[in-house]
Formats: sequence, C-alpha cells, structure tokens
Amino acid sequence: MTIMNGKELRDKTLKGLKKKVDKLGTTLGLAVIQVGTDEASTVYVNQKRKMAHEMGYKFVYKLFTRNISEKNLIREIDILNKDDSIDGILVQMPLPEHINPKVIQNSIDVNKDVDGLTLTSIGRLINNEEGLVPCTPKGIVALLDYYKVPIKGKNVVVIGRSMLVGKPVANLLLNRDATVTLCHSKTKDIKAYTKNADIVIVAVGKAGFLKRDMIKKDAVVIDVGINRIDGKLCGDVDYVNVSKKASLITPVPGGVGPMTIAELANNVYEAHILRNKI
Amino acid sequence: MTIMNGKELRDKTLKGLKKKVDKLGTTLGLAVIQVGTDEASTVYVNQKRKMAHEMGYKFVYKLFTRNISEKNLIREIDILNKDDSIDGILVQMPLPEHINPKVIQNSIDVNKDVDGLTLTSIGRLINNEEGLVPCTPKGIVALLDYYKVPIKGKNVVVIGRSMLVGKPVANLLLNRDATVTLCHSKTKDIKAYTKNADIVIVAVGKAGFLKRDMIKKDAVVIDVGINRIDGKLCGDVDYVNVSKKASLITPVPGGVGPMTIAELANNVYEAHILRNKI
Repeated sequence: MTIMNGKELRDKTLKGLKKKVDKLGTTLGLAVIQVGTDEASTVYVNQKRKMAHEMGYKFVYKLFTRNISEKNLIREIDILNKDDSIDGILVQMPLPEHINPKVIQNSIDVNKDVDGLTLTSIGRLINNEEGLVPCTPKGIVALLDYYKVPIKGKNVVVIGRSMLVGKPVANLLLNRDATVTLCHSKTKDIKAYTKNADIVIVAVGKAGFLKRDMIKKDAVVIDVGINRIDGKLCGDVDYVNVSKKASLITPVPGGVGPMTIAELANNVYEAHILRNKI
Repeated sequence: MTIMNGKELRDKTLKGLKKKVDKLGTTLGLAVIQVGTDEASTVYVNQKRKMAHEMGYKFVYKLFTRNISEKNLIREIDILNKDDSIDGILVQMPLPEHINPKVIQNSIDVNKDVDGLTLTSIGRLINNEEGLVPCTPKGIVALLDYYKVPIKGKNVVVIGRSMLVGKPVANLLLNRDATVTLCHSKTKDIKAYTKNADIVIVAVGKAGFLKRDMIKKDAVVIDVGINRIDGKLCGDVDYVNVSKKASLITPVPGGVGPMTIAELANNVYEAHILRNKI
C-alpha cells in the first residue's frame, strides 16, 4: 500500500509553477473578498495570502462589514473584473443571508473565476472545453496522475454530489474516459457500487464512512473529508482498516487538502493565460 | 411488459400545454434559424413549424445561404434576442465549417435557449437551478413520470455521453436523486453496469446494441437510438428479445422521439415564463 503524499505534490507543483510564472515576466494578481469576520474564512484567507506571497503574486484583500449590500459587493467585484492587474478573483463563503451567493459568484468574470463556480465555468467543464475548474477536484486528478493511476476505462465511484467536489471531479474523470457513478445520501446500498470500483472518491463529511468491506482489494481510495473528532483531524475513510486493503490511499491531513491551495496557485496562472489569449 | 407510448404522451402534453398557453392571453414566438439546405434539417424544421402552428405560436423561420459569415449570423441571432415577440430561438445543426457552432449556440439569450445548450443553461442544470433543459432528456423524464417509474434512489445507467442526451439526462435524474452511472465507448464491460440497473437509457446510435442478457429482469429500458436498417427505423435496443425481459420499454419509432417535439413546445412556454419573471 502506498500513501499518496499531497504535501510532496503540492511542493513540487508550486515549485514547477513558480518557474513558469517567473518566465512570464509579469506579476500575476489574486484578489480575495471577505464579508464579515468568520474565523474559518480568516484562516483560509491567510493560507491564500501565504501562497500568493510564495508565488510572487500580487495579493489584494478586500474585507467588508456584514452590512454591505449585494449591489455594492457586485460593484466591488466589477472593479476587480476590469482591473488588468488582477488575474483571479475569489469570494470567501459563507456570505450574510441578505446576499445571494449565486448572484455574487456569477458576477465574477468567467476568465478570472479561479474557484470555477460560475455557471459558464461549470458549462465549460461539462462540455469538456478549456476553462477554470474547481481547485479540489483538480488536485485529486493531479494526485492520481502523479501516482500514475490509470483513469481511462476505469470504474470510478464518487460519493457526494457537491458543486465544490463531487460533481466537478465526476466530470473531470468522465472527460478522462473513466466510467463514473455518482453516489449520494439517497443512494441505496453504496457498497454495491464501491465494492466494484477501481477508484473510490469520498466527500461526504462523515468520519469513518468508508469501511474496509466496502472496497475491493487494491482499490485506490481518495479521502476528501475533513472532520474533527475529539480535536483530531480525520477524513471520511476508516483509514486504519481501509489502508490495509487499498493499493493507494490519501491520508487526512496531508492528502487532498494541500493540493487545493496548489491548484489555486495554478488556476491564477491559467486564468492569466486564458484571459490574455482572448 | 408495458410499451411506453411516446405518441400518446406527446398528444396529452401538447393538449395540456395548449390550455396553459391559451390562458396566457399572449402569442408566444419560436424562431428557427437554418443555414444551407441540408435535407434532414429541412425535415426537422417542418416538424417544428407544424408544432408551432398547432400550438398557436408565432413561427419565424430564417434561412441563410451557406456563405453567411459567423459575425452576420450572430447579428441575426441578436435581433431575435432583442425581439420581445420571440420566446425561443433554435439554430439547426449542422452549420457550415467556417462557423463555430459553440460560438453561435452561446450567442443565444440564455432565457430563449430552448435547446438548453448554452454554457449557462448547462451550468444551471448541473447546479439544479431553474432553467431551460434539452428537449430529449426532458421527454425521457416525462415518460418515466407518466408511467410512474420511481426515480429516487434507483440505479440508473446511461449509455452515451453526448451533450444532447447522455449528460443532461444523467444530471436530470441525479437531480431527482437517482444514483447514476454514465457509460460510453471507453467503458470496459458495459454489461457489468447494466445488469444491475433499474433503469437503462441507451443513446449510442448502434442498432441492436442493448441485448437481453445485459439487463436485469423487469428493468425499465429507454431507447433513444434512431437507426435506419434496410430502410426500416430501429433503435439501439434488440427490441424483440429485450422487451420480453423488461417491465417497461420505449419502442422506436413512437417512444422517445415524439416526446422531443412536445418538450420543445413546453420549453417555448417555459422560456416565456422565465424571461418575464426576470
């Protein structure tokens, strides 16, 4: 059994990307918008700032009080849309209740949409067209490629159908010619699907959800869960037991997690290329 | 075994829709653009004109010679986008090689996109948001509902991953809480998936593709294929043998086919409602 090392790949990815960015001879820009002072959001913003600093990106941080109107927030996004020094724009979720997150997301220029969550970005992914793809799904595929896991023609089961992970990763792998089944909370007998899968991707947010008897021998197991049990971080996989049967497995922490920030760095670069091609 | 009668449901759907349309007290409009005189396209346009006439829709038909430029075609679409008497706009495929069909498709106002093929329409479907959905997938779901086939929690296998049928029907059924597997030309051992499926939807364009030993007893079989063998129309299912094992099955012709035009009529109505809400 091999542990898929997300930290190692993150470091390699950022190092390789840095070289490409330096070659561009221009400074890339990432803008992050936060509304209110949600503690988790602040932690995430700090991770992004740190990454931007390491990559030599210009980092613009706009923090607004919770009483900002939707209209004014859109106006702020529009300023960033028009700012040629900004390549990527992110809005930290959650937003206050009086602001519609979908309206906000879709007000971001599709070619600066480094979260890959605008309707047009989603459409491009489903259509298998060039575009920006959500960071975590991209990180999962990068991990599979790094560990030379074949994808074409393989039986892939994705558990969880969120717009951030399940649906985009299912479509990325479908675009790579996998046969993909999307399971979720309404699936009867998830084991009936997972026990035949070559690759199982779990993103349900329940500690210990995927058990040893649910996978076939030598399956590849990708754990996207981030749960806190008695103050300890753990994923959606019963790691101790599943890791004895899997051929490859991502740990939590240190598996998929670190890849998300690496792919965000990547998306800022790709957004720059995409925008300047058009 | 019950044969799912698409003609019967088409007629009922159009009849019910006509009542709703008459209640609106306004004339709905459908515009069809054709470039060149492809024979099949002309047949399809005539079907649409006939439907529009039956429904009391205004029907605008714009036929251009094959040498129209992409720019001019977009200009013509834009006139229709701005025309308040037009609720739905369709561009007949195929287009001449010098015109990019994706650019043309995406120049249609998303709220007049009765084919459901703009990137934003696709994004809305994946996001499970209100919007316009391709007609054939909608017709398939309407048939399942008409014959009271349960969808939630069911094992659905879709064979074929086109943007017109496979991908949208997979997402429609996922939005209805089915567990969906999307199989395609690169899938190894399609039977391994179909033999466990409660509902099998075939859209591969190969006569006799789905055989009796590939389905489980009492499965529901939806045949989207339209093939011509020795001048005779047939689907993708080995109908004679599969129909003996299935609980419900669509014939070809007379199954899914008639539903497509009914759902186009529906989409014109829904487009009107959608646009006038915004």
